Amino acid sequence: MKLARYIFNGRVCYGVLEGDILHELARPPFGGMEMQGRKYDVGGVELLPPVFPQKIVAVGLNYRDHAEEFNLDMPDEPVLFMKPPTALLAHGGEIVYPEMSRRVDFEAELVLVCGRECRGITPEEAPAYVLGYTCGNDVTARDLQAKDGQWTRAKSFDTFCPLGPFVETDVDPSSMAIELRLNGEVRQSSNTANMAFGPAELLSFVSRIMTMLPGDVIMTGTPSGVGEMRPGDTVEVAISGLDTLRNAVV
Amino acid sequence: MKLARYIFNGRVCYGVLEGDILHELARPPFGGMEMQGRKYDVGGVELLPPVFPQKIVAVGLNYRDHAEEFNLDMPDEPVLFMKPPTALLAHGGEIVYPEMSRRVDFEAELVLVCGRECRGITPEEAPAYVLGYTCGNDVTARDLQAKDGQWTRAKSFDTFCPLGPFVETDVDPSSMAIELRLNGEVRQSSNTANMAFGPAELLSFVSRIMTMLPGDVIMTGTPSGVGEMRPGDTVEVAISGLDTLRNAVV
Repeated sequence: MKLARYIFNGRVCYGVLEGDILHELARPPFGGMEMQGRKYDVGGVELLPPVFPQKIVAVGLNYRDHAEEFNLDMPDEPVLFMKPPTALLAHGGEIVYPEMSRRVDFEAELVLVCGRECRGITPEEAPAYVLGYTCGNDVTARDLQAKDGQWTRAKSFDTFCPLGPFVETDVDPSSMAIELRLNGEVRQSSNTANMAFGPAELLSFVSRIMTMLPGDVIMTGTPSGVGEMRPGDTVEVAISGLDTLRNAVV
Repeated sequence: MKLARYIFNGRVCYGVLEGDILHELARPPFGGMEMQGRKYDVGGVELLPPVFPQKIVAVGLNYRDHAEEFNLDMPDEPVLFMKPPTALLAHGGEIVYPEMSRRVDFEAELVLVCGRECRGITPEEAPAYVLGYTCGNDVTARDLQAKDGQWTRAKSFDTFCPLGPFVETDVDPSSMAIELRLNGEVRQSSNTANMAFGPAELLSFVSRIMTMLPGDVIMTGTPSGVGEMRPGDTVEVAISGLDTLRNAVV
């Protein structure tokens, strides 16, 4: 099932997408989905990021190929950071190059969407708490990341968290092709099978630190090939089984 | 003016505290305060953290004495990290020692509360966007901070962000005595005048990265003397002009 969040007639709605038809949900898709009868063409709405998380938790160095690229050892536990909700950007939205940075990079990521509140769950229990998956771009001001040591500033600018377009609920995340395309050219190409810590392990690990709430997301790390974007570029995150996330840089 | 957030008869309310009397506000105290007539004794309510931020932005190494203590140079710009809203804890609440850590430290901090949405403001403009100040304890699993490099995990456990008890709106943050007491004994003692970056500079800096929303907070860093807490301890953050924040460790 493909879930969307969008604005229709000034209201924020959640819906199920079938073909080009959006079936509006009676309430957010956590704890059961109930259609409420209204349906309309997806072309007539403004897409939003498919969920509005309280927490955007992200994982550094989770693909073996990306760690090799930076000559770094794989950590024995996931290394976490967070992006603020004000960084969220919808499919089709514009990534704004900040004044503070001279080097802004793309990072294609598979994003897990939490469906139910959880705390201290095991990896075996984790899949039951997952609503689904979507595409994300962990946009990073590489110069500020290097300068600060801490990654928060570099990854927290407004528009630095493109997410979407939809949450796909029926997905096996263990082996999905993941690609980033810059102006149509493939720049990152890997498979989620190359993750050091899989999505279920990550949700379990994070839930042992902080209570995860419905709609919270985990960005599961990026493969090798990260690189620079410039104003005027178009950047796409393409993951097999999911719709492609596309954003322009301005 | 002293602002509280609390539960009364099952409802989350905001109120103005005068002596022991809470005057309930008609709505959250952003964009003007309107009493709505109800008042009652503060002893009869359950205090919550005085605001519920979307973002808890924190600053590393902002007191010259704390940097010296760790033999670190002062950065030329603030180094930021974030704590998740699920880490919030009210005055009187219990800090839970997590299973993952063997070393949990206190860090007394003055906390700025943002009153109005702001983006890209100057230090001169910043005071007009501040609702007030409160006390915070940036509880930190020191062993995990050292292990991860990134500070997020170490600072994000549930209950690791005690905040309160009240937001004081009439405060000059440029020279406030700040103390941490562990079981009544003074362990940190400094003055906000020792900050490298003052509150107005910090709000300006953060607002150039991410849009700050009403209720968002900035934890302005901790002075020297950070140290360990153990289950059974009582920890207090005392700042001149503010009520003292007290929590037990369990």
